[in-house]
Amino acid sequence: MIVYVNEKYLEENDAQVNVNDRGYLFADGVYEGFRIYNGKIFKLQEHKNRFQRSLDELKISYSLKDEIEEVFKNLFKKNNYLKEDELFYYMQITRGVAPRDHGFQKEKPKAGIYAFLSKKKINLDAYNNGVKICTTADNRWARCDIKCISLIANCLAKQTAVEDGFFDALFVHDGVITEGTSTNVCFIKDDILYTHAATNRILSGVTRNFVLDLCKENDIKVVEFPLTTNKISDVDEAFLTGTSGEITPIIKIDNITIGNGKSGKITKKLQKYYREYVNNNFY
Amino acid sequence: MIVYVNEKYLEENDAQVNVNDRGYLFADGVYEGFRIYNGKIFKLQEHKNRFQRSLDELKISYSLKDEIEEVFKNLFKKNNYLKEDELFYYMQITRGVAPRDHGFQKEKPKAGIYAFLSKKKINLDAYNNGVKICTTADNRWARCDIKCISLIANCLAKQTAVEDGFFDALFVHDGVITEGTSTNVCFIKDDILYTHAATNRILSGVTRNFVLDLCKENDIKVVEFPLTTNKISDVDEAFLTGTSGEITPIIKIDNITIGNGKSGKITKKLQKYYREYVNNNFY
Repeated sequence: MIVYVNEKYLEENDAQVNVNDRGYLFADGVYEGFRIYNGKIFKLQEHKNRFQRSLDELKISYSLKDEIEEVFKNLFKKNNYLKEDELFYYMQITRGVAPRDHGFQKEKPKAGIYAFLSKKKINLDAYNNGVKICTTADNRWARCDIKCISLIANCLAKQTAVEDGFFDALFVHDGVITEGTSTNVCFIKDDILYTHAATNRILSGVTRNFVLDLCKENDIKVVEFPLTTNKISDVDEAFLTGTSGEITPIIKIDNITIGNGKSGKITKKLQKYYREYVNNNFY
Repeated sequence: MIVYVNEKYLEENDAQVNVNDRGYLFADGVYEGFRIYNGKIFKLQEHKNRFQRSLDELKISYSLKDEIEEVFKNLFKKNNYLKEDELFYYMQITRGVAPRDHGFQKEKPKAGIYAFLSKKKINLDAYNNGVKICTTADNRWARCDIKCISLIANCLAKQTAVEDGFFDALFVHDGVITEGTSTNVCFIKDDILYTHAATNRILSGVTRNFVLDLCKENDIKVVEFPLTTNKISDVDEAFLTGTSGEITPIIKIDNITIGNGKSGKITKKLQKYYREYVNNNFY
């Protein structure tokens, strides 16, 4: 696979960054993951706005122009992808290369950019039949709203969940469920959708926000308020939202079966609305 | 400067890691910083024990052998350092190169190692005259006891402190002072030393622990209990402990002058005991 790194297109194995890139030394960088439908980027502007916000919050002096689209086009061509390929596009921007020091240099280094475009099929079993998920302590930092590459807490939570036989984990902070390790989470109770508000404790997902839009358009009431763990057994439905998995039904949390243990009625409706939007706008 | 990366000794500018090193993508790695006195590593075994613990806590399958000492010797020679040079030695170990996925690969990649040995003079003005420091929200993750390269919260806190005219920042979590951005912190009140206990909220510093040993040897009472921010004005002395700065007096926190605004009596004593130990054991 050909990837992009600091203005060069290289074979993945040959693509390197300097050891003093602050992304490598300090997790001093941000990223975005994009879904590609029929050769086009889904919700480009939303991702771009969030990317710029993440850069600004970390005080990385970098203004996005058309590099997301440009690099995407080139990676698409250079890797000989086809429109019908299911693709995932990733870009990260770090503060750049500087001698190791926690504070920033007075002379700002040139930001470092790495991007790849890879084939990634949606997990149809998870999409159709739902997943079993566990809860875990939310050990992350207090700025989960910044899409920072500082993801070790997410990686450890995901790995522990998988080792324990679960699809993924839901983070619990101060007794409330915040989100998944790389997804947001929604619950349905009495036809109302509940999800954690877009505070510093969650990454306000592009798919999450799109699903909330779909709810508004289809008269599904939304309450942005988190679920406490002791209420898990009360909900009728639950699902994850994310760029790669779109809307993934949750059928079990820890040892608690959700609803009748199958993908719920509103979950399926939202999957349908999502697909209709994609079909109408990308094909 | 010649640095070490993945079994090679290279000029710093030519030293690179693959873009899919998990250290670069996820902050999935740990590190240690060592002080060198007279060409020898200070508290090698203590650093090594902590390094191995950090690796184990992140489930990075890597057993330290003699690489810390070996790489140090080679970097010392290759850079033509002299025994009298004040040196700082850094080594980081990441989980290695793997396609980007939050969970770990079944086939474990080879761990990545980067190390450098650089000249770093102690800041004598800070050491003798003390520093002014601010408090800041402790936005870090809940596993501050792991010396992980996931340091963006530390970098932001340090940078904001410096921009606001302070030497550094002290983290405040749930109303108590935990530690500095790359140091621990101690307070003296009525000849008793107070410092945050070695919980998950602080990195148990090698210098911190050495200072506590010095206290025991010299009949200075130690209480491992944190200071609440509302008690700052009550303390007689305060200082930072760290590998690079050893013991750095604090003379002001936010707008509160500590003691008489100069390096305190016990602070100076501990600096003297520290120096005596180094002189007796390294020269």
